[in-house]
Amino acid sequence: MGPDSAPPQTAEEMAKVEFFLGVDGGGTKTQAVITDSFYRVVGEGLAGPSNPLRVGVERAAAAIREAIDRACQAASIDRGKIAAAEIGLAGVRRKDWRERMRAALSDLGIDTLEVVTDADIALFGATDGGPGVVVIAGTGSICCGRNAHGRRACTGGWGPVAGDEGSGSWIARRALQAVAQATDERGPQTALVQAAYAYFGGETPDELSTAIYAPEMTNERIAGFARHVINVAREGDQVARAILAEAGRELGTAAATVIRRLHMQHEAFPVAYVGGVFVAGELLLEPLRKAVARIAPKAYLTQPAMAPAIAAARMAREHLYAPALAS
Amino acid sequence: MGPDSAPPQTAEEMAKVEFFLGVDGGGTKTQAVITDSFYRVVGEGLAGPSNPLRVGVERAAAAIREAIDRACQAASIDRGKIAAAEIGLAGVRRKDWRERMRAALSDLGIDTLEVVTDADIALFGATDGGPGVVVIAGTGSICCGRNAHGRRACTGGWGPVAGDEGSGSWIARRALQAVAQATDERGPQTALVQAAYAYFGGETPDELSTAIYAPEMTNERIAGFARHVINVAREGDQVARAILAEAGRELGTAAATVIRRLHMQHEAFPVAYVGGVFVAGELLLEPLRKAVARIAPKAYLTQPAMAPAIAAARMAREHLYAPALAS
Repeated sequence: MGPDSAPPQTAEEMAKVEFFLGVDGGGTKTQAVITDSFYRVVGEGLAGPSNPLRVGVERAAAAIREAIDRACQAASIDRGKIAAAEIGLAGVRRKDWRERMRAALSDLGIDTLEVVTDADIALFGATDGGPGVVVIAGTGSICCGRNAHGRRACTGGWGPVAGDEGSGSWIARRALQAVAQATDERGPQTALVQAAYAYFGGETPDELSTAIYAPEMTNERIAGFARHVINVAREGDQVARAILAEAGRELGTAAATVIRRLHMQHEAFPVAYVGGVFVAGELLLEPLRKAVARIAPKAYLTQPAMAPAIAAARMAREHLYAPALAS
Repeated sequence: MGPDSAPPQTAEEMAKVEFFLGVDGGGTKTQAVITDSFYRVVGEGLAGPSNPLRVGVERAAAAIREAIDRACQAASIDRGKIAAAEIGLAGVRRKDWRERMRAALSDLGIDTLEVVTDADIALFGATDGGPGVVVIAGTGSICCGRNAHGRRACTGGWGPVAGDEGSGSWIARRALQAVAQATDERGPQTALVQAAYAYFGGETPDELSTAIYAPEMTNERIAGFARHVINVAREGDQVARAILAEAGRELGTAAATVIRRLHMQHEAFPVAYVGGVFVAGELLLEPLRKAVARIAPKAYLTQPAMAPAIAAARMAREHLYAPALAS
């Protein structure tokens, strides 16, 4: 059944319905959806984290299997009915990790199964498969784009030590630096100080330091402070607002770089934004929009066209049919 | 015997000679020195790391005991001959850690034994106990000062997440960010890229990322890259030079803050600099000097008057006699 067919009308046609599986797996949860050929979601399943860098290949594969089985159960179909699957995962930027995950999922019995990065499915979901750019800023940050010739480019995704500019982790670290500077009287006073005590625990600088450097502290937990930085900024704190504005400019630089590398300066296309830090709204979006407008005046900021797991299901279908269509 | 006596001439006078112990303990090694009343070093001993935050109280105390015993052996004296000891340690900014270390060392049988921070002994060593400021920038960074009234103030020492601006760890992280930006074409090209591959290992961005985020990677190991950043800067790389200049400005801001907080703007005093990053020389010192000159034109940059372990021994003596002198 080709992508442009009409919905099935008869029992015979119904028997030919194909199902596509999309998975969106990250550091906190895994979401699987099953769609039919008409992109209608017929089943959904959730499971724990499946970033193999964080939880290992075995646990990641187990979480993905669990999410898929729940989605199959909800759709009342067997895994064997799945025509193609696309697994989008955090932590698989390296090809060897994608191959290891693919091998770990080979016993699912799904013939056409691809493992791609979470950025790949977010890009597809953001632009509906067309040309455009997606700016992803959650715990980390990455920006990817695709032009009309199908060429792709990404910047960022370097993690908290070497980058992740504009991400939740970056915003939280900047805020902690501002807290240290305010405490030492090196920088301006800010309501971030009290917010940091409330979030990390402690009543003195020493206690705050102890909390930040405790062995159980994680990058995810630090990044969680970004929400509070956003709240403090909304209440008018100038230091917090400056950090968010800088985050927006950093994300704008990332988008501008992708646009330049793909030679899209003179085209009209969506720049979609995805991720937790965008609850900051205009505090972050305004400097991002300005940075994009400077390099590509016809580009426009937008929310993604569809959720990543559904985008993955559509990519699965495209992977199955694209070679035939191209030949 | 008071501090201003002449050296002992007779056997009777020799019998009255007092010995003072100074210890400088950090994340990589512990140095103990024994001096006589005339600040002459009569014995020295080395042992492994004694930062209790890193190695635990037990191992830190064992290293300190080992260094002291070696120093006693070198000086051919018993521990019982030590009139007073000053133990300067990294990782004891919190009072409860200093107290735990003091308790762990109580079985040494030294009556007058104080545990202070490494910054305390560096400050004393930098200014010979007089008014002044010390800027310490090794793996981390901290700046402390003391004015003519004996008031003390410090800024920094917040660790790699919340601060340590201008330190080796900070310089190395900035350099890694510049590497990521150059690789992504977000920032200018720089010789730091090849230097990072050579230091951390790897031949592709993915391999570099994997090396930086490997579980066995430590903040100390990251900070070690700073030496290579300095080499690249010396060879003329503009990105590396800009990072070092910013490090110097950050350390200058720290010094200026301490000077302001101690109301020393109009006085003449030494600003001593200590730590591995200062092998960068004028690339770092020039912006630091300028920042200090702006707030305190009569202050002057200098190397420390004495080594930290020897400073500790002098502090030990001062602690023993100061109450008597003050009364």
